Amino acid sequence: MIVPAAARRFSGLPAGDLAQRYARIRLYSLTLAAPLSAEDCQVQSMPDASPTKWHLAHITWFFETFILERHEADFRAFDPAFRVLFNSYYQGVGEQYPRPQRGLITRPTLDEVKRYRADVDGRMQTLLANRSDDTAIAELVTLGLHHEQQHQELLLTDVKHALSFNPSRAAYARRWPMTSVRPQPLCWFGYAGGLIEHGHDAELDGAFCFDNETPRHRAYTAPFELASRPVTYGEYLAFIDDAGYRRPELWLSMGWDWVRQGRREAPLYWHRDGEGWRNHTLQGLVEIDPRTPVCHLSYFEADAYARWAGARLPTEVEWEHAARHLRATPGAAQRGNFADSGAFHPLPAGDAAADEPLQMFGDVWEWTQSSYAAYPGYRPLPGAVGEYNGKFMCNQYVLRGGSCATPAGHVRASYRNFFPADAQWQFSGLRLARDL
Amino acid sequence: MIVPAAARRFSGLPAGDLAQRYARIRLYSLTLAAPLSAEDCQVQSMPDASPTKWHLAHITWFFETFILERHEADFRAFDPAFRVLFNSYYQGVGEQYPRPQRGLITRPTLDEVKRYRADVDGRMQTLLANRSDDTAIAELVTLGLHHEQQHQELLLTDVKHALSFNPSRAAYARRWPMTSVRPQPLCWFGYAGGLIEHGHDAELDGAFCFDNETPRHRAYTAPFELASRPVTYGEYLAFIDDAGYRRPELWLSMGWDWVRQGRREAPLYWHRDGEGWRNHTLQGLVEIDPRTPVCHLSYFEADAYARWAGARLPTEVEWEHAARHLRATPGAAQRGNFADSGAFHPLPAGDAAADEPLQMFGDVWEWTQSSYAAYPGYRPLPGAVGEYNGKFMCNQYVLRGGSCATPAGHVRASYRNFFPADAQWQFSGLRLARDL
Amino acid sequence: MIVPAAARRFSGLPAGDLAQRYARIRLYSLTLAAPLSAEDCQVQSMPDASPTKWHLAHITWFFETFILERHEADFRAFDPAFRVLFNSYYQGVGEQYPRPQRGLITRPTLDEVKRYRADVDGRMQTLLANRSDDTAIAELVTLGLHHEQQHQELLLTDVKHALSFNPSRAAYARRWPMTSVRPQPLCWFGYAGGLIEHGHDAELDGAFCFDNETPRHRAYTAPFELASRPVTYGEYLAFIDDAGYRRPELWLSMGWDWVRQGRREAPLYWHRDGEGWRNHTLQGLVEIDPRTPVCHLSYFEADAYARWAGARLPTEVEWEHAARHLRATPGAAQRGNFADSGAFHPLPAGDAAADEPLQMFGDVWEWTQSSYAAYPGYRPLPGAVGEYNGKFMCNQYVLRGGSCATPAGHVRASYRNFFPADAQWQFSGLRLARDL
Amino acid sequence: MIVPAAARRFSGLPAGDLAQRYARIRLYSLTLAAPLSAEDCQVQSMPDASPTKWHLAHITWFFETFILERHEADFRAFDPAFRVLFNSYYQGVGEQYPRPQRGLITRPTLDEVKRYRADVDGRMQTLLANRSDDTAIAELVTLGLHHEQQHQELLLTDVKHALSFNPSRAAYARRWPMTSVRPQPLCWFGYAGGLIEHGHDAELDGAFCFDNETPRHRAYTAPFELASRPVTYGEYLAFIDDAGYRRPELWLSMGWDWVRQGRREAPLYWHRDGEGWRNHTLQGLVEIDPRTPVCHLSYFEADAYARWAGARLPTEVEWEHAARHLRATPGAAQRGNFADSGAFHPLPAGDAAADEPLQMFGDVWEWTQSSYAAYPGYRPLPGAVGEYNGKFMCNQYVLRGGSCATPAGHVRASYRNFFPADAQWQFSGLRLARDL
Repeated sequence: MIVPAAARRFSGLPAGDLAQRYARIRLYSLTLAAPLSAEDCQVQSMPDASPTKWHLAHITWFFETFILERHEADFRAFDPAFRVLFNSYYQGVGEQYPRPQRGLITRPTLDEVKRYRADVDGRMQTLLANRSDDTAIAELVTLGLHHEQQHQELLLTDVKHALSFNPSRAAYARRWPMTSVRPQPLCWFGYAGGLIEHGHDAELDGAFCFDNETPRHRAYTAPFELASRPVTYGEYLAFIDDAGYRRPELWLSMGWDWVRQGRREAPLYWHRDGEGWRNHTLQGLVEIDPRTPVCHLSYFEADAYARWAGARLPTEVEWEHAARHLRATPGAAQRGNFADSGAFHPLPAGDAAADEPLQMFGDVWEWTQSSYAAYPGYRPLPGAVGEYNGKFMCNQYVLRGGSCATPAGHVRASYRNFFPADAQWQFSGLRLARDL
Repeated sequence: MIVPAAARRFSGLPAGDLAQRYARIRLYSLTLAAPLSAEDCQVQSMPDASPTKWHLAHITWFFETFILERHEADFRAFDPAFRVLFNSYYQGVGEQYPRPQRGLITRPTLDEVKRYRADVDGRMQTLLANRSDDTAIAELVTLGLHHEQQHQELLLTDVKHALSFNPSRAAYARRWPMTSVRPQPLCWFGYAGGLIEHGHDAELDGAFCFDNETPRHRAYTAPFELASRPVTYGEYLAFIDDAGYRRPELWLSMGWDWVRQGRREAPLYWHRDGEGWRNHTLQGLVEIDPRTPVCHLSYFEADAYARWAGARLPTEVEWEHAARHLRATPGAAQRGNFADSGAFHPLPAGDAAADEPLQMFGDVWEWTQSSYAAYPGYRPLPGAVGEYNGKFMCNQYVLRGGSCATPAGHVRASYRNFFPADAQWQFSGLRLARDL
Repeated sequence: MIVPAAARRFSGLPAGDLAQRYARIRLYSLTLAAPLSAEDCQVQSMPDASPTKWHLAHITWFFETFILERHEADFRAFDPAFRVLFNSYYQGVGEQYPRPQRGLITRPTLDEVKRYRADVDGRMQTLLANRSDDTAIAELVTLGLHHEQQHQELLLTDVKHALSFNPSRAAYARRWPMTSVRPQPLCWFGYAGGLIEHGHDAELDGAFCFDNETPRHRAYTAPFELASRPVTYGEYLAFIDDAGYRRPELWLSMGWDWVRQGRREAPLYWHRDGEGWRNHTLQGLVEIDPRTPVCHLSYFEADAYARWAGARLPTEVEWEHAARHLRATPGAAQRGNFADSGAFHPLPAGDAAADEPLQMFGDVWEWTQSSYAAYPGYRPLPGAVGEYNGKFMCNQYVLRGGSCATPAGHVRASYRNFFPADAQWQFSGLRLARDL
Repeated sequence: MIVPAAARRFSGLPAGDLAQRYARIRLYSLTLAAPLSAEDCQVQSMPDASPTKWHLAHITWFFETFILERHEADFRAFDPAFRVLFNSYYQGVGEQYPRPQRGLITRPTLDEVKRYRADVDGRMQTLLANRSDDTAIAELVTLGLHHEQQHQELLLTDVKHALSFNPSRAAYARRWPMTSVRPQPLCWFGYAGGLIEHGHDAELDGAFCFDNETPRHRAYTAPFELASRPVTYGEYLAFIDDAGYRRPELWLSMGWDWVRQGRREAPLYWHRDGEGWRNHTLQGLVEIDPRTPVCHLSYFEADAYARWAGARLPTEVEWEHAARHLRATPGAAQRGNFADSGAFHPLPAGDAAADEPLQMFGDVWEWTQSSYAAYPGYRPLPGAVGEYNGKFMCNQYVLRGGSCATPAGHVRASYRNFFPADAQWQFSGLRLARDL
């Protein structure tokens, strides 16, 4: 959530910039949905995923409910039924339509949801023009846009999951230029650790952050070292070939149960195909490229791989510390292989010699060993928007750095993503760490 | 399935008639889908139901797989992937796409499925023109058209179920003229029974039948009487008001478990609304009309109601015997309130005095007490089409007479429909019987 | 339930006989439990089964609740908590302890339950002595003793199931003399059928019957023939070896799902052991004897075997008709391989030439194709004892003839046992039938 | 696991002491089982719990498998089947009997398991006498005895759970002297925090520890304060009466789902009884005593209560830090209300003024907010015994301090217990913490 320092900063922001930013980010959601048919946008392939149409409506609902309803003169709901239909989990706003049934909402249609978006966007622009000096509105709009970007990533990962049930013709888009590079050798970078500052810093990370990144606080870490790049498909294949999925000693107890009950022998979206493996991607079924960061790993798989490799997952304190000290690529959080590259798949690191960790941002979310928990002194915002992060702090693990499905500009060094240990449908990989 | 007598009759049928019949019945499927959006046609609201799009594709697949593939010169599949994708349960044809995931097939789109239909229809018309004297083809086409009519009814009941998950705007169509009539009093008609002939008779029932209606055979029944009309909403409401859903002695043991586990207190689609009950129909939410035959009952509910009323469900032998001896309305199986009335809901019987059972055909399927089983001497057809009926003869109960969602001309006195005891989403009601 | 004719007969029965019969049958329950430890008597291996201790208590509860409570002067419950604890499913008596948790009732202990039995038995003998002329009591006692015999069989089948979870030392008793006989060749016996009388007849079947065997009524059956003996292990092995569990065309649709979901490739209690099969029995793990009637088949397996063999299951009308017309062995229902033989396993037929069906009674229950349903004119008894049979008439199939676990003297030609189609833990086999 | 320093210390320990300690702790397991019948010892009331008989066998198996099998000359298994039957989860030792079916192992009987214990104990005493100078054996024996003590506590909590299914006569023992005391008022004690040492210290905590308490390492904590005693029944009742179970804003999202799905409105073992609440305890059903520490809370309930109270759960660093600095009761870990008090229930704190936290040890395990994770630099032991702790480090939360069911002398300040967030059947309560 927005820290006071950030709030002050907003008041100095030219009003026009926010309106433009609103227009640009809102448009990008439609751009992402453009390659999809009404049918593609309708389906929900598991309770954890949502239909594209629902995403498009819900992120609009956020602006209508938390901003227009409170700040628009003569507010009138576009459709009163939407208040329940597109509420995700905000108990403070009232009832929610049951999550596992989101795919059964056929009415409104996709076209009607687009009209809903257009209507709310028009009213939002009017509000932004009339109330350009209202800090509270600016803060909520900023929050809403970051919320929208999160759903843009979920839209992509949910579509990928849904398309995987189409036995043929399962591509979302074909625009990924497969470039041929030599593999990046793995090396390690050391960190002295000590008592360090952890959490969001407006100077370093930009004004905005979610409430779970605060407050900035002290934490201690022993010396450690971090791998120069994420684990690749080629390396993970060696783990599989070394009977990785058949050796209980490599797995957490829950992980081993998960392997056996699911009869798993490879990550999600891998298909054995004659002599080799093929991979369901947003560009359809492709050969596995051994140099590419491996993704769609559960926490269990990431943990087992690290144990097999004689290493471990980093803590989130270690990861953030390293990400803050990138020298050669200080703007890594702004560049890298994000959704705007159009690949929608991790890309190889390239073979240029590295003098610091590569691919810390973009490509794949990196599992840390850290359970998702409140920072010391954490306080959620009052009211329904305060339900955003804190109430999920149980049985989830933190991922860092963003992925090839994250909108550019959305992440930062202090950004905390989190998923349950068995979740696989995000672009989740890992980077190894070791004690020094 | 087609009995030999029927087969001979086909050879005398003018070829043009069959082609016209083909065109008319195939078109009716599209007519039924016309009020629905691509989204409406996509969803599957429970494993027992299928998406409209899937129905439209599957019934086309039937013609392509069982007729064109065998009889068309230079046959080439419209799309080879469809062979698995739209196979319902025919093991003899090979693999099937998992039934509970039919709603996840977003590709092909509805438009592509319509192109698939147009393509197959064109080729079928060519085949029918060139091979007009081929009895085997005529028989298969006839079977395919009856199969299509069955799916037309399922399409309507599945859509009704799917739309019920839309909290608002859940109407399929609005064309049902609510007519005001006085209630039809209940009276009883007696039958002497004895050793009678049971099962399909080409003279009485028309040439075509499914294999499960054969062979015609002898059966014995004691004297019995049958109610003059189905049980109405008004009567069923009295059962509810008399604590029908709270008295275990009225229910089968399995039925009582079903009531408690589902916390049921009324049939499917009833919603308590302030002081009264409202009913989800294909025309949206409506008041309950006490004179109308009650529907969407499970076998458990029909059985419990009958016990409460001091009566019982008829056997299928009794029902068919009575249906054969309608004097005043010998063509009842051709008229009555079928899908072509456009009501898509049962209608009141009217208040004219009855001198024989009314509404035996159309309005609601009537549960019998008979377990669905093979007639003595029953033989399924050889080959994959023989998988049509016989393999479902377990834990299902027979319903008779057709409903307001059955295409006109589809049923006959010997027609046997069947569903599990807990199925509610068909237009299923009951007519009381008693020993004499 | 007791038909009026039977009731009249009881009044002529010397009182001492009933008291002796009571003592003998009650003692046999304890005899059956004697080889078991307190631990063996405690466990419940699936919701459908009950602990031995529970059986012993419940059948005592029946006498206490339905007889002593109504007829004993100054009745006082042995322990008021037992009224709920040991009520199986009689809604009319009040609440029941949840069935799947019967194995968690550790208190009372087995010893206390035996004291409960002794207490009730003493009071029952007093009642029987004092009220020897009371027909109503005599009828209820007779019902209670037949009820106890049913639980004696269940006790054995439930213990067999429970012991199968002990990886070693799983024998109940060792007293089965394996005799070496040559196989009985299979031959067929024909029946003309026609309009016949069906159901209990006091002259032919003895005075007592359960209500579901009544009323005697007319039924029609076409000519048929019946196999000379049940299907054997050897024959069933040929079905397995002919890929019987891998060919969907042999199975009902529900049966095929059952095979695949359970990954089944043989009946219950078969264990592949190196080159051959071994069989868990009440005498421990034994070699399969190919001449012995095969048992522990589900209805699905019996039905699939019959289809594979080019035959079918008999109807219950056919079976009863044949059982009534045994010429050479008119007392078959009284002799045969019942529980008192101590084998607790079916035995080979022997190789003597047969001139009528062998092993109609005892050895294995024989699945019929008949769904368990009310006979025309069936009326359950009033009151809680009327919950005995009728409320289970749904999704069950009738078995006939008794088994090697049935107490001798318990069955008759009109006796109807019934289980769901997937039940395997009874001694259930099959006899083939064919149309003539 | 045993740290090197500890290992060295063992070599100086007189051999007789270990043998005596072995005898004493092993006997206590039998003492705990003494009030139970064979039936009580047989049952398993949920997959997470184990039968008493199984506990008694498994902890014997530990000594037989990890010590005798390796160190006894001419080792011969007591019963080779036990190797699989009583292996809990050690993959390194081979197969395990399925955990949810432990309650179905009726053979061996309880008496046979006791013979198994006697046999192993005799051989162990011989080994300890002959190899009194073998450090490796001494270490393993020490580990085995601590392992046995853990199962002693589980035995009590599992028995409590199992007995709760007996509607009457559910007491384990009656020896709890209810003393009347005035309530202890709640006050707070502050701690400065800073960079502190965390984890096992042989000087402070004694030589032995489990591997998950190591290595000792530095951790930083901000200033905090801790409540003077655990939350009581009376305080928790106020939370219930303030609609605590009906207000989603007080709960974690997973916790709220858990409340609704389980229709929960109070902790485990609370029964509403007319106007008040009663509590199932090991001494039977008792009145709730408002001054007693509340127990059988899930993590969800502890977390929700703390939020309602305007406080939070402590971290495990905070808890251990406070436990180390008890001035008035430095031996608290050795005294307090442990299992040997015979109460088997938490006791009130008394009303004497406190100048430091009371009841840190014994009475109830205290939930911390800390996810159970590896300490920096943690290394599990090599071999099968290394499967002891590390592989469970996922989706569990740490509890500290021991309970009224913990054997005296078993816990220490560094001791880490852990359970999933929904676990309730341990004696788990909470102590509030706040930021300073």
